[in-house]
Amino acid sequence: MRQPSTFKHVVLAACTAFALGVTAPVLADGDYAQYRDVFEPLPALPPIPADNSMTSEKIELGKMLFFEPRISGSGVISCATCHNPALGWSDRIPRAVGHDGQVGERNTPTVLNSGFFGAQFWDGREDDLEGQALGPIEADIEMAMPLEDAIARLEEFNEYQDKFAAAYPEYDGDSVINADHVAQALATFQRTLNTPNSPLDRWLAGDEGAMTPQQKRGMALFADNGCVACHRGPALTDSQFHRIQVPGSEDEGRFLVTGEERDRFAFKTPTLRNVALTYPYFNNGATETLAEAIQVMGQEMLGQDFSDEEIADLEAFMHALTGEMPRFEVPALP
Amino acid sequence: MRQPSTFKHVVLAACTAFALGVTAPVLADGDYAQYRDVFEPLPALPPIPADNSMTSEKIELGKMLFFEPRISGSGVISCATCHNPALGWSDRIPRAVGHDGQVGERNTPTVLNSGFFGAQFWDGREDDLEGQALGPIEADIEMAMPLEDAIARLEEFNEYQDKFAAAYPEYDGDSVINADHVAQALATFQRTLNTPNSPLDRWLAGDEGAMTPQQKRGMALFADNGCVACHRGPALTDSQFHRIQVPGSEDEGRFLVTGEERDRFAFKTPTLRNVALTYPYFNNGATETLAEAIQVMGQEMLGQDFSDEEIADLEAFMHALTGEMPRFEVPALP
Repeated sequence: MRQPSTFKHVVLAACTAFALGVTAPVLADGDYAQYRDVFEPLPALPPIPADNSMTSEKIELGKMLFFEPRISGSGVISCATCHNPALGWSDRIPRAVGHDGQVGERNTPTVLNSGFFGAQFWDGREDDLEGQALGPIEADIEMAMPLEDAIARLEEFNEYQDKFAAAYPEYDGDSVINADHVAQALATFQRTLNTPNSPLDRWLAGDEGAMTPQQKRGMALFADNGCVACHRGPALTDSQFHRIQVPGSEDEGRFLVTGEERDRFAFKTPTLRNVALTYPYFNNGATETLAEAIQVMGQEMLGQDFSDEEIADLEAFMHALTGEMPRFEVPALP
Repeated sequence: MRQPSTFKHVVLAACTAFALGVTAPVLADGDYAQYRDVFEPLPALPPIPADNSMTSEKIELGKMLFFEPRISGSGVISCATCHNPALGWSDRIPRAVGHDGQVGERNTPTVLNSGFFGAQFWDGREDDLEGQALGPIEADIEMAMPLEDAIARLEEFNEYQDKFAAAYPEYDGDSVINADHVAQALATFQRTLNTPNSPLDRWLAGDEGAMTPQQKRGMALFADNGCVACHRGPALTDSQFHRIQVPGSEDEGRFLVTGEERDRFAFKTPTLRNVALTYPYFNNGATETLAEAIQVMGQEMLGQDFSDEEIADLEAFMHALTGEMPRFEVPALP
């Protein structure tokens, strides 16, 4: 059965290439088989910490907290303001805008698939989502509310008392509404925000029609040129730090966390999943389009000028990394 | 069949009253029959202007625009920031917080059921939703983006070009993305944000168990004391302007629109539908609880001090005005 199917694909691909005036070599899908070992499909769930089990009560509570603006100094900024579900769970502006309209130094990373990251924030100053969750609540230029005030605000609502009690039924400490529980619930909700079944995932599962011929050419370029050295694993990031100076940036990146010279101007490899939705690009968000971002990456990281055709193919492959958005209902807050 | 049913309710109500130690007279449901003529159920749809037909394309476009933060000066404030679906399509803070954290003069009104209002804004400076829609985009302390800039921003997106063309297929003017069309689409989406089937509506439809005995007592108090003089019609507002000075307010209200002395300190009667969800109360949002708001209204508008028991009954009735929230999915923006 294999031979006729492959033959049909070769003919179809050749016809498509002819119709489009494409001059690149036409490969049968079988010629891409080697790349199945280069990429990993996105699992349904990211790793879950042994001490923060993923219960439905915790997910529900975490969703409420994610959309809760009253744990911000202004009363109107929530996690969902910058990690906006309408905008790929990011904000699509160069740098984050927070409390009193202050503009931060860095581009908002999407929270989609963030449970798969081995380090959080652009500079990796936290290891996991539990560690990450509370930072933006307290940050002066983000939500700008001291954590004790945020806790006190939540404690005013009977409904939050009930939801925290339901999420942490075995807790017997002082107050069930506390910082650890806020962080755990937010992290748990975020671990549900995954985007499976992208064209790449479907192709990896065996569906040869899931990616276009151009996307497959882009995939081959991506692998053959070494992009996968850093953009690897299920979320297409190694969660490591690499030195890069993108247009317009003077940000010293991870150096500000470690003080180590080798980390100066180093940033965490961002995920490429849903990268077509999470423009603008890089730590300072100064690069607007995928094509520009690909060009910059070729020059900065590979010392290579991609041709226009290669950039177009790579860009097409980037679109093959857009998965199914998480379905959810906006919670009704107390 | 009527007699036994009524008898059963009398007995049940009497038992409930006994159990709760309630001393107010216990009325059989039939004794409330007169009040069915005092209230109106919420229709499924509000009035629709003849020149802005409610098409699914316009609803979809309007929803996108409602959640679109890039038509604000900061890039992060959308209609949904203050009219937050998680918070009763309002913000649950005293006064609106907008561009650069500026705090406005007035409490954010909910957009729920706003298609039923005969006047828009607290001061009625616009008659209809089409007139209302563009104001907050341009207002310096709200979204703070000149309308021509907002239009230009939308024009950059092919997807908006397509969506506007689909929503206005017969338009043959210069640019289909224009202020009138933005206003019409936003108004159309808002006309879908209705909350039918509240306990009051279900009781009006004949379901005698839809309201509690206390809610029915509150309903009778509400009607008998003349609250219905202003809070009437399907949205429980006459859309007229009445002079009121609530605690802490020096706002001259509709006087600032008309310059007429009789409008000094006059504000539009707010809807009472979903009032339990849309705290805090009044034009300045300085009143936190329903009980306080009821007390203030009794004193200010009726010259009357309600007893604690009457306030509790009226408050229970206010909860009977909470309807079914509109179901929707957060749109995926371009």
